[in-house]
Amino acid sequence: MVPHLTTALSGPLLSLEKRMLSDIPKIEHWFRSQWLEYASPFYASVDLRNSGFKLAPVDTNLFPGGFNNLNPEFISLSVQAAQVAVEKVCPEAHHLMIIPENHTRNTYYLRNVVELVTIMKAAGLDVRVGTINPEITEPTTFETHDGQKLLLEPVVREKNRVKLNACTVDGVDLKAFDSCAILLNNDLSGGVPEILKDLEQDLIPPLHAGWHVRRKSQHFAAYNRVVADFSKLLEIDEWLLNPYFETCGEIDFHARTGEYCLALKVEELLAKIKIKYAEYGIKQDPFVIVKADAGTYGMGIMTVKSPEDVRDLNRKARNKMSVIKEGQQVTEVIIQEGVYTFESINDAVAEPVVYMMDHFVIGGFYRVHTGRDVDENLNAPGSHFVPLAFEKPCTLPDCTGQPDTVPNRFYAYGVVARLALLAAAIELQENDPLNH
Amino acid sequence: MVPHLTTALSGPLLSLEKRMLSDIPKIEHWFRSQWLEYASPFYASVDLRNSGFKLAPVDTNLFPGGFNNLNPEFISLSVQAAQVAVEKVCPEAHHLMIIPENHTRNTYYLRNVVELVTIMKAAGLDVRVGTINPEITEPTTFETHDGQKLLLEPVVREKNRVKLNACTVDGVDLKAFDSCAILLNNDLSGGVPEILKDLEQDLIPPLHAGWHVRRKSQHFAAYNRVVADFSKLLEIDEWLLNPYFETCGEIDFHARTGEYCLALKVEELLAKIKIKYAEYGIKQDPFVIVKADAGTYGMGIMTVKSPEDVRDLNRKARNKMSVIKEGQQVTEVIIQEGVYTFESINDAVAEPVVYMMDHFVIGGFYRVHTGRDVDENLNAPGSHFVPLAFEKPCTLPDCTGQPDTVPNRFYAYGVVARLALLAAAIELQENDPLNH
Repeated sequence: MVPHLTTALSGPLLSLEKRMLSDIPKIEHWFRSQWLEYASPFYASVDLRNSGFKLAPVDTNLFPGGFNNLNPEFISLSVQAAQVAVEKVCPEAHHLMIIPENHTRNTYYLRNVVELVTIMKAAGLDVRVGTINPEITEPTTFETHDGQKLLLEPVVREKNRVKLNACTVDGVDLKAFDSCAILLNNDLSGGVPEILKDLEQDLIPPLHAGWHVRRKSQHFAAYNRVVADFSKLLEIDEWLLNPYFETCGEIDFHARTGEYCLALKVEELLAKIKIKYAEYGIKQDPFVIVKADAGTYGMGIMTVKSPEDVRDLNRKARNKMSVIKEGQQVTEVIIQEGVYTFESINDAVAEPVVYMMDHFVIGGFYRVHTGRDVDENLNAPGSHFVPLAFEKPCTLPDCTGQPDTVPNRFYAYGVVARLALLAAAIELQENDPLNH
Repeated sequence: MVPHLTTALSGPLLSLEKRMLSDIPKIEHWFRSQWLEYASPFYASVDLRNSGFKLAPVDTNLFPGGFNNLNPEFISLSVQAAQVAVEKVCPEAHHLMIIPENHTRNTYYLRNVVELVTIMKAAGLDVRVGTINPEITEPTTFETHDGQKLLLEPVVREKNRVKLNACTVDGVDLKAFDSCAILLNNDLSGGVPEILKDLEQDLIPPLHAGWHVRRKSQHFAAYNRVVADFSKLLEIDEWLLNPYFETCGEIDFHARTGEYCLALKVEELLAKIKIKYAEYGIKQDPFVIVKADAGTYGMGIMTVKSPEDVRDLNRKARNKMSVIKEGQQVTEVIIQEGVYTFESINDAVAEPVVYMMDHFVIGGFYRVHTGRDVDENLNAPGSHFVPLAFEKPCTLPDCTGQPDTVPNRFYAYGVVARLALLAAAIELQENDPLNH
């Protein structure tokens, strides 16, 4: 089952997809040359929005947490890509410690960790899961929503290394564990914990990929450059792949400072979008999304259709916007062109999420959401989306088929997701403390 | 459906598979370090024989011709691996010319070429198929057994390059085609054709991978070294993975010279195998396979159970042994320990064939053969095997399952096939004229 595009796919996107299909060798050649220049992140997921007239990334996650939502039929693609990634990053490694998020009550997230362990084991590593959650002081087995077991062991620090102690679990003796490589599945929203600072071990991805350093605006600034290049190659209007954005720093939602900047930027952006909508004959109302520049987990996000919307925020809205994950205060926001989601299944809106390992598209899923509208963020707290795994891989376009057939739509997703991945690679390279 | 092992899997192989399962990280780490040292062939297939007490490669093909027999569900694994291979060998290439075998009447082989084209296109290259068959003087569309179309265009030589001329086929204009990379799916049994000599373009695999240069005995000599290393790592008896072999040069089956050498080597080998059979309590009769050292396509192959069998060859047998593909005379033979095939489906013997692209196992199939016996070669002319695609990838061992479950048996196949691939990599490096 694949979401239905509620707008007939006859507008700009159809011609864009046609262009992508006829230019596959050009596109792939271009990507190959880019990956010779930039090192791909170890893994990533990209949230896309497909409005039928526009296909764009809205978020790029360097600590993807939904491996459990991928089609289990194609897990071998993840394993193969993980082998490539390991060969590049740590070919000498025997062992791999995975450090996940601290929220152990989310049994779906735990299932993601189980899946990641499975993939990395099949890729040929000896894998154990270390937790930096201070509440877990001894090896503890957790159960996922579907009854799988996951052993979390407290990470211990010894000089400049983190390790796992020897222990006995369910009668099985586990040796002490010291890995030269550590895979982070923790986005460091709350900053780098003391225990992970100044390690001599390889952290994958590196610490500066964490949300304590990353800014969405930096990512999309890099994306601007990537898409400008790519659009030139394909001779297309880059707006079809790229949402406009602006930023405001120095915002304090409680003290109500910075509201003027916000309203002004909202107004400017809406005006720019209006021009594009007119150019392409799009009847919908333009809207923008205001979100924390360092944010994640869909917290601190607001849909805005007029500058008035941000001038008169009530207390509740201000509270909602001011704090994101791990209690971090929001002081910088990104104002991004909203992209309608015109994909739906049984009246529920659906948003594609594409997964990549190294620079390979390994699959994806739709966030299917009954309680949300076409202009709302689908990755929000309490947003109980239903994952719908992509039926097929994204790497098998059918050049003899129509551009809107499933394999071809998936190919287009994969192309746009890889553009965002490339932007993340550039962003990471530019943020690398070793380059400064 | 998976072939049934007719011998209960309780002998040495079971303990070998157990060892492989418990040592996955060690095995994969070892392979990673090997691939840092040796460049993998672009692609390969390995014929295995599984006797329940022994799992060994019997032939390694560097121009695999059965991509059509792989499970179409997992073609994306081939595409991903092909992307890696292209990135290594010719990242700058836009175009790829594939040069297949000349036998255009084998519609199953043509189907293999169609599949290879599909894979390489999806990997992002602009692909055309050039033929060096002198009978094809203009672009000609062939049809496969299942109704797919394949356009073969005659290769033209211009100075030190081969190209395809511009042409119009079915009303479609095709531009002239000049690719910096050429993928050979032609094993060069008859020597390197003039048109392919001294090209400035990259031939993949290189010319010295052709059967005009390769010798099975060189391959298995390299395999000896690979398996010795690997067996040390796993602390196992290498005989479980390695068939004994000997060679005789200067044989002329018609003039009946060299028969003495052959009979002697057969006798010695049978004696060595007998000792091993006794050690492992194996009740079957040892046998050896005599085949052309430069042979392929299963021509010039004989099952031998006693030195007498080769001393009194009748005219028919001598004729059969003396000529292989493309009418080449056989003067060197390899005498290899025969490995019983104790896998079967509905009373038909089945032999696994594992496919690899770059150093990744991308799938495989069983040659299922009703008309042959457990000690006969299944890849022979007129050998109308039925291909049975592997149901699942070979990269997802189930460590919680029994060693003889399907994913675990497939994993073992993949390990042994990769050992043979590594031997081929060493062999190619040693035969590289640039290294001499």
